[in-house]
Amino acid sequence: MRVKVFQDILDANDRLAEMNRAVFAEHHLLVLNLIGSPGCGKTTLLEKTLASLLARKKLRPGAVEGDLETSRDAERIARCGVPAVQINTQGACHLDAAMIQSVLPALPLNELDVLFIENVGNLVCPADYDLGETCKVVLLSVTEGDDKPAKYPYIFRKARAAVVTKMDLLQHTDFALDAASRDMRIAKPDIVAFQVSARTGEGMDRWLEWIESLAPRK
Amino acid sequence: MRVKVFQDILDANDRLAEMNRAVFAEHHLLVLNLIGSPGCGKTTLLEKTLASLLARKKLRPGAVEGDLETSRDAERIARCGVPAVQINTQGACHLDAAMIQSVLPALPLNELDVLFIENVGNLVCPADYDLGETCKVVLLSVTEGDDKPAKYPYIFRKARAAVVTKMDLLQHTDFALDAASRDMRIAKPDIVAFQVSARTGEGMDRWLEWIESLAPRK
Repeated sequence: MRVKVFQDILDANDRLAEMNRAVFAEHHLLVLNLIGSPGCGKTTLLEKTLASLLARKKLRPGAVEGDLETSRDAERIARCGVPAVQINTQGACHLDAAMIQSVLPALPLNELDVLFIENVGNLVCPADYDLGETCKVVLLSVTEGDDKPAKYPYIFRKARAAVVTKMDLLQHTDFALDAASRDMRIAKPDIVAFQVSARTGEGMDRWLEWIESLAPRK
Repeated sequence: MRVKVFQDILDANDRLAEMNRAVFAEHHLLVLNLIGSPGCGKTTLLEKTLASLLARKKLRPGAVEGDLETSRDAERIARCGVPAVQINTQGACHLDAAMIQSVLPALPLNELDVLFIENVGNLVCPADYDLGETCKVVLLSVTEGDDKPAKYPYIFRKARAAVVTKMDLLQHTDFALDAASRDMRIAKPDIVAFQVSARTGEGMDRWLEWIESLAPRK
């Protein structure tokens, strides 16, 4: 019974996700769903990514911020000078397609090329929920440990790209990049992997070029 | 409908949790449910805690390890020389009381004084599930950022204690201990707070003494 109800919820979500996807396609929008543990550096990577995209002037970005509570992240993002809206899930552990649908009218979709959706900090539940995005991007910080791709393989399987973050802290950890990369590829053989430090800028160019390469031509 | 079904699931879980609680009481067991993000240092803190408890010879510890996949954590814990069993949730984002009930026969409960249950790495969903534990303990690593108690208040509200981990990395982060402490106490005014580094041993004595103070006298 429990499995059946969960499947009904996912089916309903998938129908709304397809409606979101149609809206995004109509506006020629690249939509990236950023997923990772609490504190893996999603908002910080996003801040640096937005500032860099604005400076490079190829894409016009916007953002949707998902959190259980507070509007802190949307305020941080809005200070970057891009359109941003906050979703508070009031305890729910993931964003769903209905939440995204409800905030789209608050964004100037005609004036955007890429929309970042920052999911609730959670390496498990957001894997199951299609938001209508172009693709999921999973973040893993070096301070979390290199065993996470083996222990949380589902999200790596669902993601098109994986970003190893906080590379500036690598030297202070036992994180083995080769072990993490191997286990990511076991979960998803063709995953696109990045290693970045939003703080120092290490690895950011390749990440930004990848985003620009995915954006639909208008 | 969705809320109703979720409530039914929680009600069923609570009934099983009370059965677990009766078993723990019968064996005079202290049971701590450790909850935190993936990579916040649950297993490392547990390894050091177990080794220290064994050396101090006041309590006989055991452990239940929860993960989506792999038996890596139970193997790490078993190497400490304490009874340990692994639960693989196969994708589920939290442990529930039924999972705990199913593994209790594999543990020598008569020979234990304290049982640590390491939950799936997740700062959200495990908050809702009573496992029959004495209390929940939430872990937060300094590398995750000091905004987490404000952004994930539910789990802090449900926990009796909070352990700030990876204190040896504090100097490499922007983590503000006072801000984190303030927001923890907004969520839960009487939360017992610890600051530890399992790597250096900083703060471990107070944490161990607290555990020993909670254990039922036999």
